Order: sequence, then structure tokens, then C-alpha cells
Amino acid sequence: LSHLYHFSKVFYLCVHAISGNTDGAVARESTERNCSSTPPYLPSTAVNTSLQLEELRVQMRGMNISAYIIPATDAHLSEYIAPRDARLAFMTGFTGSAGTAVVTLNKAALWTDSRYWVQAERQMDCNWELEKDVSISSVAQWLISEVPKGDEIGFDPFLFSLKTQEDYNINLESSDRSLKSITENLVDKVWKERPSVPPDSLTRLPDRVIRRTWQEKVEHIRTQMGDSPYKPTGLLLSALDETAWLFNMRGNDIPYNPFFYSYTLLTMDEICSKPIIKLKVYLNASCEGALCVQLKGYDTILDHLKNYVTRPGVKVWIGTEYTNYALYEVITPQDKLLTSSYSPVLTTKAVKDETEQQILRDAHVRDAVAVIQFLMWLEKTVPEGNQTELTAAEYVDKCRSKQKDSRGPSFGTISASGPNAALAHYSPSKETNRRLTVDEMYLVDSGGQYLDGTTDITRTVHWGKPTEMQKEAFTRVLMGNIEISRTIFPSGTRGVNMEMLGRRALWEVGLNYGHGTGHGVGNYFGVHECTNLYLEMILRWQICCMLFFEQPGYYKENDFGIRIEDVAVVVPVQTKYGNNYLTFDTVSLVPYDRKLIDTSLLSSEQVRNRISLDNQLQDIYLQFLKMRYKYVLTQRHKMNARLHLGVSLLPQN
Amino acid sequence: LSHLYHFSKVFYLCVHAISGNTDGAVARESTERNCSSTPPYLPSTAVNTSLQLEELRVQMRGMNISAYIIPATDAHLSEYIAPRDARLAFMTGFTGSAGTAVVTLNKAALWTDSRYWVQAERQMDCNWELEKDVSISSVAQWLISEVPKGDEIGFDPFLFSLKTQEDYNINLESSDRSLKSITENLVDKVWKERPSVPPDSLTRLPDRVIRRTWQEKVEHIRTQMGDSPYKPTGLLLSALDETAWLFNMRGNDIPYNPFFYSYTLLTMDEICSKPIIKLKVYLNASCEGALCVQLKGYDTILDHLKNYVTRPGVKVWIGTEYTNYALYEVITPQDKLLTSSYSPVLTTKAVKDETEQQILRDAHVRDAVAVIQFLMWLEKTVPEGNQTELTAAEYVDKCRSKQKDSRGPSFGTISASGPNAALAHYSPSKETNRRLTVDEMYLVDSGGQYLDGTTDITRTVHWGKPTEMQKEAFTRVLMGNIEISRTIFPSGTRGVNMEMLGRRALWEVGLNYGHGTGHGVGNYFGVHECTNLYLEMILRWQICCMLFFEQPGYYKENDFGIRIEDVAVVVPVQTKYGNNYLTFDTVSLVPYDRKLIDTSLLSSEQVRNRISLDNQLQDIYLQFLKMRYKYVLTQRHKMNARLHLGVSLLPQN
Repeated sequence: LSHLYHFSKVFYLCVHAISGNTDGAVARESTERNCSSTPPYLPSTAVNTSLQLEELRVQMRGMNISAYIIPATDAHLSEYIAPRDARLAFMTGFTGSAGTAVVTLNKAALWTDSRYWVQAERQMDCNWELEKDVSISSVAQWLISEVPKGDEIGFDPFLFSLKTQEDYNINLESSDRSLKSITENLVDKVWKERPSVPPDSLTRLPDRVIRRTWQEKVEHIRTQMGDSPYKPTGLLLSALDETAWLFNMRGNDIPYNPFFYSYTLLTMDEICSKPIIKLKVYLNASCEGALCVQLKGYDTILDHLKNYVTRPGVKVWIGTEYTNYALYEVITPQDKLLTSSYSPVLTTKAVKDETEQQILRDAHVRDAVAVIQFLMWLEKTVPEGNQTELTAAEYVDKCRSKQKDSRGPSFGTISASGPNAALAHYSPSKETNRRLTVDEMYLVDSGGQYLDGTTDITRTVHWGKPTEMQKEAFTRVLMGNIEISRTIFPSGTRGVNMEMLGRRALWEVGLNYGHGTGHGVGNYFGVHECTNLYLEMILRWQICCMLFFEQPGYYKENDFGIRIEDVAVVVPVQTKYGNNYLTFDTVSLVPYDRKLIDTSLLSSEQVRNRISLDNQLQDIYLQFLKMRYKYVLTQRHKMNARLHLGVSLLPQN
Repeated sequence: LSHLYHFSKVFYLCVHAISGNTDGAVARESTERNCSSTPPYLPSTAVNTSLQLEELRVQMRGMNISAYIIPATDAHLSEYIAPRDARLAFMTGFTGSAGTAVVTLNKAALWTDSRYWVQAERQMDCNWELEKDVSISSVAQWLISEVPKGDEIGFDPFLFSLKTQEDYNINLESSDRSLKSITENLVDKVWKERPSVPPDSLTRLPDRVIRRTWQEKVEHIRTQMGDSPYKPTGLLLSALDETAWLFNMRGNDIPYNPFFYSYTLLTMDEICSKPIIKLKVYLNASCEGALCVQLKGYDTILDHLKNYVTRPGVKVWIGTEYTNYALYEVITPQDKLLTSSYSPVLTTKAVKDETEQQILRDAHVRDAVAVIQFLMWLEKTVPEGNQTELTAAEYVDKCRSKQKDSRGPSFGTISASGPNAALAHYSPSKETNRRLTVDEMYLVDSGGQYLDGTTDITRTVHWGKPTEMQKEAFTRVLMGNIEISRTIFPSGTRGVNMEMLGRRALWEVGLNYGHGTGHGVGNYFGVHECTNLYLEMILRWQICCMLFFEQPGYYKENDFGIRIEDVAVVVPVQTKYGNNYLTFDTVSLVPYDRKLIDTSLLSSEQVRNRISLDNQLQDIYLQFLKMRYKYVLTQRHKMNARLHLGVSLLPQN
């Protein structure tokens, strides 16, 4: 799964409505709204938002604000949110995962990036403007033009990071419009049918997949607190994966991510976290010592924190990237606050221990079996003419579900044929579903949650005869993937340096892609772990993000899309002259489509890095691949297959 | 010239004392201080700083501060400073270009990076601790451990950027020690023999080297101010090259950089700048309109700015990277301030117009003639045994001085043989001077100021038989240079992306270098123009820094140093599928030492990029190169030579 971000405007993907052989799609003219026609035209997918806007404006007048900002995140600044946090969708009708809405007393606007422009035009009614520059300065300039001087702009501080609040502040600073923090969310007040919190379904991880008990992790984090020259007395954990990691627990409050709503305040002598009935014994909830967890109501965090901060001599450490502004603003005066970008839990968690590395490799072997089964099934059934994007997406989930320790998909499968694949974040729906044919390229980006790991893999295939342009683009995407995986770099190199390697072969002929080249991944966690760490922080052996996706791509509008995505682990490597050098060890084991590779474009080093299938491979690969001689395995695939594949991992159908 | 910066600690160069065949060097044991022996040992190069420390502490007590921070920069945050601004050197004895000193009532410490550790140990007496982690958080932690709670730490706000002040503030924030801004510099109060400002020697650039008059530039900047949605009424220019560029003027207040002490406050209807007697007519100094320059005393800037800020409705735009904290803090309240990282003058200046590009190429042709003359002279005279690092440095300056429009060197020549070249920023002195021999590699990094451009070029040569390791390292450095110069990238790519290309061939065998791979360069300006812009900002055709150095290197401690540095211009390029792609056009014309190149390591693409000398070249190259067949020219050298070289440019000796 690619985490889209923008280098600058020149990289924006241009996404327009797709025409083609969609199954049951509405004709092109009618899928998007047209607010400038008389009367305005709205497609059937548009949501009437007049009522909720009217009710929100009543609330806004009551608070004496002239605008209200509605972000797309939750109080933990999560990437995926639960339905009860989908306030943006409730207000606007737009269900994309990224965006910001602003409502004034007479206008309403949504900012979202190029991935979602078509979707927004299909889902919003004419109450809403669509704004395309998603920077905070663009939102602020709109606010300055719409809000009268001297007026206030409301926001829910639980849904703003410290940085977001600061960015708005800086942009509004000399405009005579100011922000007003309102801890009661105004959308919730008008959202009568807001979904409730799912029933408590927490589990602890089995011992076989953990190396460190929660008590060991707590002690380790307390050591880091004690070692800090700033002498923090408490550590506030706000991101959902922080509490889940610390206690070796998982839940299902959030779709695709095994998280549960929680905060933790870890002090040197006590731990406070959310109430968990059935794991009370595991968490030592009935005692009062340093390794006993006091369980508190989720909604009491603000009061609890305020109360803690009043104690003399305390200092609370927060990671600013994932702490919301509501919690930040109660930690006063300044000398009671200690900030770093990431909490010590997040930086500790980013380093995978030996058990985590091993089980992650194991999970990828089982995942590869499922994906290869799926690809083979497509090979056989697509020419028969009965498969669509939706049936394919179902089948890959089914293949994974049969594997040991499967816990469902790690995100909504991107199953995209022909032009649909040109939308980097397309997911098939009834309206857009295409039949799979030997005339189109097909891209599948999917992943699984397993008790022992999270996977995320993308393959692009063609069952007929690809064009020269398709082969060239695919080969250059593969060159980017190979260049990253074979590169040797000193410990301490920033992840952002890999961008150049993923893109260069494409740039040579004037091709490019609009998303990032890598992101971190967890062990039975989010599929986008340390997305920002990957770019900003430093790749070190056992110091930082160990896991890494390589995902160059290319997207030709209205035609096809290519992406190749593998998971790799950072490993040490011996060099001729230097020490402390690293390289990537790819743990994804699914081969690439040989038909799409133009070997004449590859350098000799790149050819050495991938090998043709040979007879030394284990039975599992032979079974799936030898008969066709169509997919190509890299040297790493081959070596990993030898190490890991055994009879117990044979497919179960 | 390489602008050293640090990726992280792992890249630090380890610099130790050098042994070897130094001419007249003091024996190794005695060159560095030893403060732990009894009595402490001080070399003859150490400066006794007891008196100035005692006097500074009197001043500190008078201001009721417990520590005083002394940076190495001037009020314009310049890279090179005038002798009168060398306060750090006066206080510590240490004359390196980078560092921070802190004096408390009973201790004193200097922070400087690895380039200067040896030098600091040679120049400082035992009043001073040497601290090696140069981050502000390291200085702040030292301050927290040395300054009692509740006490104040003094600093001169003219010598702090806004960001430096903020960084100290953040790091001290919860420690109960605070910063105190003191606008009268305390070092100046005890520095009795502080050099005075040099006499006024300003000149205006001749019309033949400028395309835009200062009036056109002023109008252009005012348009940008008018276009800003924040409606600034004034623009404060603090960096010395900002005023020099705006008025097409140069001076000589700063060594190697043709700058003069100045600030400019440019409003929509008036311009205030420093008093310049002889250019009054040129600057329209006697009128009062929008294109008349009012000349004010340099030291009146703070009062002038304070006064301007009291006017109703004004808003001052500053670039935070080069505006000192003293000016920043008087722009209150906040709604009278508008900030961006760089002023519109700096971002406009970074784009070279057609005249600037053309004259820069011309200057590089003349510069190449000088450097080739110099290299040929070394070829002939080194084997005779009479040349040293110092005589070579003198000769290259002499060669340049004979070229048309020469205005002296653009920085102190780095002329380094054998192990001395392993210190990336070595400059020869009487103590360290080595004889040049056929047994050692030689690195020369030098540049010239010309009325029409600034040059900066590094070549590494060997007059005898290089080792295999030297050849491999040189070739891999050259591969980095070639990879950068041949790469194609979309408009909007960040300069930092080039780092990977410069380093990758070295990383493959575990080699690396500890400085950046590129920086901007001006036209008769500083040799390090837009150093930060290069990394942070975006390379665009006629949008950002057009000029670029490629300077990979490798340094083997106590043995040799390699660097290859060329100037390149960003130019548009045609690609197979895409538009708006760029590449580099190298304008440096000096060939590389063929003897050091192992062609078996080069890829076929890299070999295609460089060609052997052939007979089609113009006379100038033939004269210098054909007879030996030793240097290699790239395809670009050859084409540039055809375009530019003519009889008028023949060497004048």
C-alpha cells in the first residue's frame, strides 16, 4: 500500500473520471456533480448535507465562532479511523481517507488531494466547494478571505496535533483572526446516529510471538526516562499502537488495524491506562506498585492529566507527532512539559527484536503462498472471462484467510484493471468494477494481518500481450525496486535517500510516480508504521525502522498503472573497506511477471540480482511456477525460499 | 570548496595530528596541549586567554548573568567574517571558521566540529574545555549542568539567528535557566584592539556584466511584496549579499567575499541603506521618491527599524535564515511581522538570468586556462623537487591573477599533499607545509573571483605511480561526479537527492565522505551561495539555485585525500515520454587525471559520458593536453571547449 505524499505540485497525479468497460457503471457524464448548471446536477452518489450544516451552524453561533475546522483523524491522530470518528464523511458526504473540511456561517469547503478529487465530486452536494491545494496555508488563506477580521475560528483540540495547531497559528498570526479551542466536538452534538464504541474485544498476544513481556518493556522505557537529562516524571502515550505495543495487546476498535482506544500515562511509579475487564490479572490491575496498571475511564484522560500536572515537581514527556493539542495545552506551565517528535515508545518499537524479525519472515512465507495461489488462479480463470476486480479481491482475502494465524486483511485490497489502476488508491466498487481480461494490465495491492506480522505486497501482471510502453515502464519500475534492494549504505542514512534510486530509471525517460517509495511496517500492527520516521529518521541496524517497503510505480492516466511493492528488512553487510554498512533483505517472496520484463534495459548488475527459475527451488515454488516459467524470482527470493519453505507451509487447499 | 555539514555522527571525519615530511614542522608530541599533565603542557601556538576571560567575567557580573554565549558569526550571519567580528578567536585563541564558545563565571568551553579538533588543541590554553558534539542541545545540556537554577545566560542578539535563539530556548525551556538578550556585545567591551571597519571601497558593477539595473530589481521585489496575500509594507534585507545584489554593487569589508556591511529597508515607497559617499548619484541619494535611496548610518538600523514599526499599518517581511534576533525582536506586535525562510531577494537572486549564465561560463573558461597552466607547471616542476604546498598555492593564485577581470581568490586555496589532503579543510601553513613529490597524491581546491563570476574547482592528481586503493577510490569518486552530472530529474527535485548519487559507488565498497555533495555559487559573490537552499529547496529551471557544485570525495586518514569538484548549471533536457525534465551542464573545463582512473570499474554509461582527448579540440586544449595524453575530458568538456574557446582567451604568459 503506498502512502501518498507530495514532493511538490509537479508530482501531483492527475486523476480524472475513468471511462472503459466498467461493469454496471453509470455513464460518464452523470457520475460527477455540476454545480454551475441550472439547476445544479447531482449524481445519485451525492449526499444531501443541508440539514447537518444547518445544525452545525446553530452550534457555531452558540459558541460565537465564524468558522469550524473538521479534520479527518481521531483523537489519536490515527491513519485509519473508526466509523464513529468519520466526522468529515458525516458532514460532507465524502468518504475518502484524507481531507479537511471548513464550515463558515454561509459557506463550506473541503480540501483533499488529487487521489480523491473525482470521488469528492461524486459524493458531495453543492453546499461544498472542493479545494485542491491541501496545505494548511491554503486553508488559512481561504479562512482569511471568508472570516471577518476579529472573529474566531473554532476547532476540536483532540483532533489537532500540536504541529497542526501551530501551522494554523503561524498562517493566521498576523491576520487578526484567531483559533478557538473547543473541547466538546460540535459535529458530535449534531450527529444523532453516531456509531458507539465497539464492545471490548481485547486480546493479549501469545507468548510464542513476543520476546519481551510488558513488564520488561515498561522497565526499559522507564530507564530511558531516567536517563533523560530533563528528568521527566511521566510519559503520556497517545498513539494507539503505543499502548498496544507496550502491553503486548491487540483490539479491534479500528478497521484493518488491531488497535483499541486508549491512552497511557506511565510514571516512574505507576501506570494508568484504559479499563480492560478481562485482562485485569494479566495487567496486575488490583495492586498499586510500579508494575501494576491502574485502569481508568477512556474519557477521564484530560482530568487525570490535569490532576497529575498539578503535583509539584512533575514533568510530562510527550511525542509531538501523535499527541493531540487538547492534551498538550493542559500541560502547563512550560517547565512541566518535555517534548520530542516521537515518544521513546515509538522509537523503541521501531526497532524489531530477533523474535519480531523471525516471525515477520515466517508470516511473509505464508503470505507468499496465499498470493501465489491467487495469481495462479487468475492465470487460469481470467481467460475464461468470469473474473472481475471484485471477485479477485474476494479471492485473495480467501487465500490469506486459510493461512495459519490469519487475522484478516491489513487494508482494503486494491484490485485494479487497466485504467482503474492508474488511480493509485483505487478500490473496486460496484460502480467502477471492471472485468479482468487478457487485454489489460492488472494491479493488485493487498496485505494480511497475521498474529506474527503484517504484510503488504503489490504485483502487476498481464495475461495477454503487453505493449512496448507497458514493458518499458514495468521494467523501469522493477529497476527502481532492484536498485533499492541491492544498494549498500552506511548506518545512519536517511530513508529519503532511497527515493532517488526508486525513481531514476523512470526519470531517464521522463516517467515518474506521485507517491512515496517506502514506509515502515509493524508486527501485527498498522501497515504504515513510522511513515514519517522512514523519511526523516535514520536507518540504523537495530536503531531505527527496520522494515521497509520498496514501492516504485508508474501510472498512465486512463490506461494502466504499475506498482511493485516488497517488504525488506535492513541487515548488516560486509564491504571491502568499511564497517557499519547496511543493505536490504527482501522478505516478500512472490515473483514478478516475467512477461513484462525487457531484460535489454537492465544493467548487468541488475540482471545478476534477479535469476531465472531453476530446479534447485523447493517444491512449493516448483509447484506454482515451474509449469509456466513465467514469473521471475530474484536471488533473494530463491535464498529465502530455501531457508523458510517447508512442508508445514504448503497451501491448505 | 566543500561546505562541511554533518548527516550524523557516523559521518564525522576523524582528524588527528598528521605526521610526515612536513617542512619545518614542530615534532608531533608537542603540537597539542596537554592539560592533564603536571604542569599542564602548552605548545607555542597556544594563546593565553586568562586576561580577556577575567575582563569578560567582570562585564558578565555587571550584567548579572552566569554565562555568555559567543558565536562565530557576524550580525549578518555571514559564512566568512571580517577580522573585527572574530570575537570567538579573540576570546579563545582558536581561529577556525566554525564554533561556539561559552564562558561561565568559572569555566569556559568551545564547541567545534571534527575538522577543527586538532587546531583547537593546538591554539587553546587550559582555560578552555573542548566539546565535540556541536548541536545546540549539547551546548544547552552543558549550560544546564554549569549554570545554577534561576540564573540567566547572556547572548548578543545581533549574532543569533531567530532559529538559533529558538533552539536554545527550546532546549533550555523547562530547565529554569533563561536567555538574556544584551544588545551591547560584551566581548567588544573588553577587546581593546578590535580592528576598525575598513575604509569605504564600494564599486558598482559595469553594465556589461549586468542585465537588470538596481531600479528594475527594486521594482521586481516590490511586485513580489505587492503580490503577497499578507501585504507587507517593508522588506528588511540583512544578509550582505542581499544589498550587494539589489544595487549591483560590491565592496571589500569581508575577506574573499566582495561584500560590504549593510542593511536595507525596502518599503513600497522608500529605500534606506548604508551611507555610500561616492555612489550617491548612482543611488539617487538626493531625492525622496520610490526609487531614491536614503543613506543612513549602519549603526542606526535598530532605531530606524523600531521607528518604522511604530507607524500604523506597517508589516515588515524578513527572511528568518539571515535575520538576526536583535532585529527580529523589535518587530512587535506579531501582526507587524511577516516571515519566510528566505527573503524574496535571496530567492530571486538564486535564479541566474541569461547574462549571468553567459558571463559565468565565460569566467569558467578563463579560470580553466589558469588551472590547466598551473597543473602543467606542477607536472614539470614537481619531479625537480622544489615545490611545496605553499609555492603551489601561490602559483595558482598567480595564474588566475593574469586572467581578464580577475578579482583575487574566492577563498583560501587548499593545497594539500599526501596525508594533509585527508583533512578536508586543510590550508597549508609554515608548520604543516609538505614538499610535493611523485610519491604522494596532491589535492588542490581553489577558486577565483572575477568581475563576471565566481569559480571553485578541485582536482586530485598523482605525478608518480598511484596504489590500487588510490585508483579505486579516485575512480569511485569520479563515478559519483559522473552519476550526478548525467542524471535526469524532474523540475522540482530537491538538491538533497543528489547526495545518494555522489556517494553510492563509494558506499558499495564501504567508503564515504563527511561533507556535502553540492552547494550553490554566485556571480562575483560568495563561493557558497544558497548552501541551504541547495539541500532544502527545489531545483527548477529558472526557479531556484541554478548553479551547483558536484563534489564527492574520499579521505583516508594519515594517507591521502581525494575530491573532484565541478560547477554545473541546471538545464532543461528532452526525454522520451515526459516534459519538464532537467539535467546538469558542467561548466568547469579542467580535465581529470587519467592515471588515477580504473576504467574497468566504470559502467558502459559512465564510459560513454567521458571521452578520450581527440584531435578535434581547439588549440588551447591541444597545447596543454595533447602532448601528454594524460588527462581525460568528458563529452561536456569537449563541447564546451568548442563553444567557448577562442584566441582571446589564450593564456597570457
